[in-house]
Amino acid sequence: MQNFEFQCATKMIFGKGTEQKVGEELKKHGATKVLFVYGGSSIKRSGLYDRVVKSLTDAGLWFTELPGVVPNPRVSLVRKGIEICRKEGIDFLLAVGGGSVIDTCKSMGFGVYYDGDVWDLICGKVKPGEKRIPVADILTLPAAGSEESDSCIVSDETIPMKTGFGSPLMRPIFSIMNPELTYTLPPYQTACGCMDMMSHAMERYFSRTPNVEMTDRVTEAILQTVIHNLPIALAKPDDYAARAEIMLCGTWAQNDMTGCGRAQDWFNHGLEHQISGFYDIAHGAGLAISTPAWMEYLSEKEDCLPKLVQYATRVWHIDLNLENPKETALEGVRRLRDLIHRAGLPLTLAEVGIGTEKFEEIADLMTDCGSHTCGSFYAMSRADILALLDRMK
Amino acid sequence: MQNFEFQCATKMIFGKGTEQKVGEELKKHGATKVLFVYGGSSIKRSGLYDRVVKSLTDAGLWFTELPGVVPNPRVSLVRKGIEICRKEGIDFLLAVGGGSVIDTCKSMGFGVYYDGDVWDLICGKVKPGEKRIPVADILTLPAAGSEESDSCIVSDETIPMKTGFGSPLMRPIFSIMNPELTYTLPPYQTACGCMDMMSHAMERYFSRTPNVEMTDRVTEAILQTVIHNLPIALAKPDDYAARAEIMLCGTWAQNDMTGCGRAQDWFNHGLEHQISGFYDIAHGAGLAISTPAWMEYLSEKEDCLPKLVQYATRVWHIDLNLENPKETALEGVRRLRDLIHRAGLPLTLAEVGIGTEKFEEIADLMTDCGSHTCGSFYAMSRADILALLDRMK
Repeated sequence: MQNFEFQCATKMIFGKGTEQKVGEELKKHGATKVLFVYGGSSIKRSGLYDRVVKSLTDAGLWFTELPGVVPNPRVSLVRKGIEICRKEGIDFLLAVGGGSVIDTCKSMGFGVYYDGDVWDLICGKVKPGEKRIPVADILTLPAAGSEESDSCIVSDETIPMKTGFGSPLMRPIFSIMNPELTYTLPPYQTACGCMDMMSHAMERYFSRTPNVEMTDRVTEAILQTVIHNLPIALAKPDDYAARAEIMLCGTWAQNDMTGCGRAQDWFNHGLEHQISGFYDIAHGAGLAISTPAWMEYLSEKEDCLPKLVQYATRVWHIDLNLENPKETALEGVRRLRDLIHRAGLPLTLAEVGIGTEKFEEIADLMTDCGSHTCGSFYAMSRADILALLDRMK
Repeated sequence: MQNFEFQCATKMIFGKGTEQKVGEELKKHGATKVLFVYGGSSIKRSGLYDRVVKSLTDAGLWFTELPGVVPNPRVSLVRKGIEICRKEGIDFLLAVGGGSVIDTCKSMGFGVYYDGDVWDLICGKVKPGEKRIPVADILTLPAAGSEESDSCIVSDETIPMKTGFGSPLMRPIFSIMNPELTYTLPPYQTACGCMDMMSHAMERYFSRTPNVEMTDRVTEAILQTVIHNLPIALAKPDDYAARAEIMLCGTWAQNDMTGCGRAQDWFNHGLEHQISGFYDIAHGAGLAISTPAWMEYLSEKEDCLPKLVQYATRVWHIDLNLENPKETALEGVRRLRDLIHRAGLPLTLAEVGIGTEKFEEIADLMTDCGSHTCGSFYAMSRADILALLDRMK
């Protein structure tokens, strides 16, 4: 186990009807002027918008709104939000939505206290300072884990480029998590969200750092819980228990508890970011295609096999084939593919209409034309990436 | 799953040599005048005392000391500490030790801001206020989990009575956790500590609240990790990996993550507090005697069987005997008894020299002479408690 520091101060307010507490809770945390940020009209159709407005009004809070956050949230809207914050003297940001809305607020909060363009912070040119407008959220999409994480990802739609930054001060002050708010998520979005949280767990789980038993086991617990509950939520979208388990898993997969004491990999997220830079593909769908292919590819590598076997035996309860442990690892990959397929997610690039035309460019971008490798569980070279992309076809 | 709120803002600073950061870290959190609280001479023998003094001095912090904390920490020392805090204008409390030292600091921190006698807070007569002197700690005994918990337990040695109070503001600001500092713990103390943390997990795990899969699984992860690492640490006291796993488990077992979304039981802790009120017995030893006996007793109760079977199959990987699930549950109890016995802990009251003479009185105290029951997983009546004590003989 490596030395580590872990702190996640976000207050989780979990359960039915909890969104009605948002006004009181904001007030308790010193809010007086709130910017209410959201995406499209879905929160108006569902009635959530009205409940939020009522709660803010009942608490006597002044607020104004910024709608229009889109998936892969845009820096242009972040800039607009910063202007509003400065003009109105906003002292709290309320994100109502999923990771895109929360990430928009996180970057906005730091951008207000930075004199230059907020993109400097997002792309890492300038380090975030010690001041920011705090963020709270009502989560409607369990996936990114931004409701407790210390990072955010924003796109510059004009370049195009998708990148992000982090700070311990970036974790939301509180997150309101009502699983009922996820009943209306389309099945594809539910599945993509679950793939994203599984990936957050796996990017940390597949690590060469030895002696991380507790961290491994909590990660396996998250994976098992998602695996069990995703099919239930797809079959019965208003199954409260399944929706609640998924929501809790999304948060715990990404608040970095599963990263305690070890090196993390993040190859699959890196690859997916490159692919979705060229093609319009949902983040979870990209991860669904790459993750099992990557695991299958690494089952050829002797150093990676033990952890892949541990994953297969502990997460999927596959009996260990002592004479052929690779077969055990591959069965773990097959089970993951089955889950992905049953959830209606793609397993190949062809299924989402992506051809081989950008393979070389993607491999170049990930390795700076072959000058370095990607990932720490297995250091993927340019050649490895091309071989992997070939399996993903 | 029940609605719940969860927030644990304590910063965990984990790993080798981390105690050297204590001065800098205190300063970062605004400390100027520190009261350094500890137990006996063991931290002087080990050199930890000198390293703490050096770190505080290097950071330019003014500090004074309060040694003398004993197991089952005493309110008399808490009162003494409060006087020092007021006289010297202390603004941060540093606990170096285990739960007793941390709990002394926690109660002291709130006591300073209460005009009456601190026992009023401890025994629950008066609610703690919103002000307290913050606490940080260097943990040397993984057991109580006080390094992240929001509660404390203190004894009035003159009554005698052992009780406690809590507040969200009571969680330490940061906890320094260096597993190396636990190498010198005697085997009995190591085992008692592990029994305590297993009990913290089980008091929450054995719950009738349905649909708490993620919370169950994280609790099982903690139990499995302690079960695996306790024998290793006993066989090789300086096994860093085993000591690190145990230390991490102690914290996560008691920061209430394992309590999210469900009713908690706490019968065994209640019983142990009564027993140790009459007899000088280590907390972990008392739990080692009562817990398996309690599980065995509850395996007779149809409503309790499913969770006991889940525990046996998931934590101990015992094959489910579908025709006789009770046998599966009992095998789970036997495994726990084996672990306890191998760890050198007692399984009967006779082993620690306790007779039957106080059984009636204990049952009376726990049920107010039979007028109420104890525990939520199974509501133990006076008769149940007497029957259980009989099994513990």
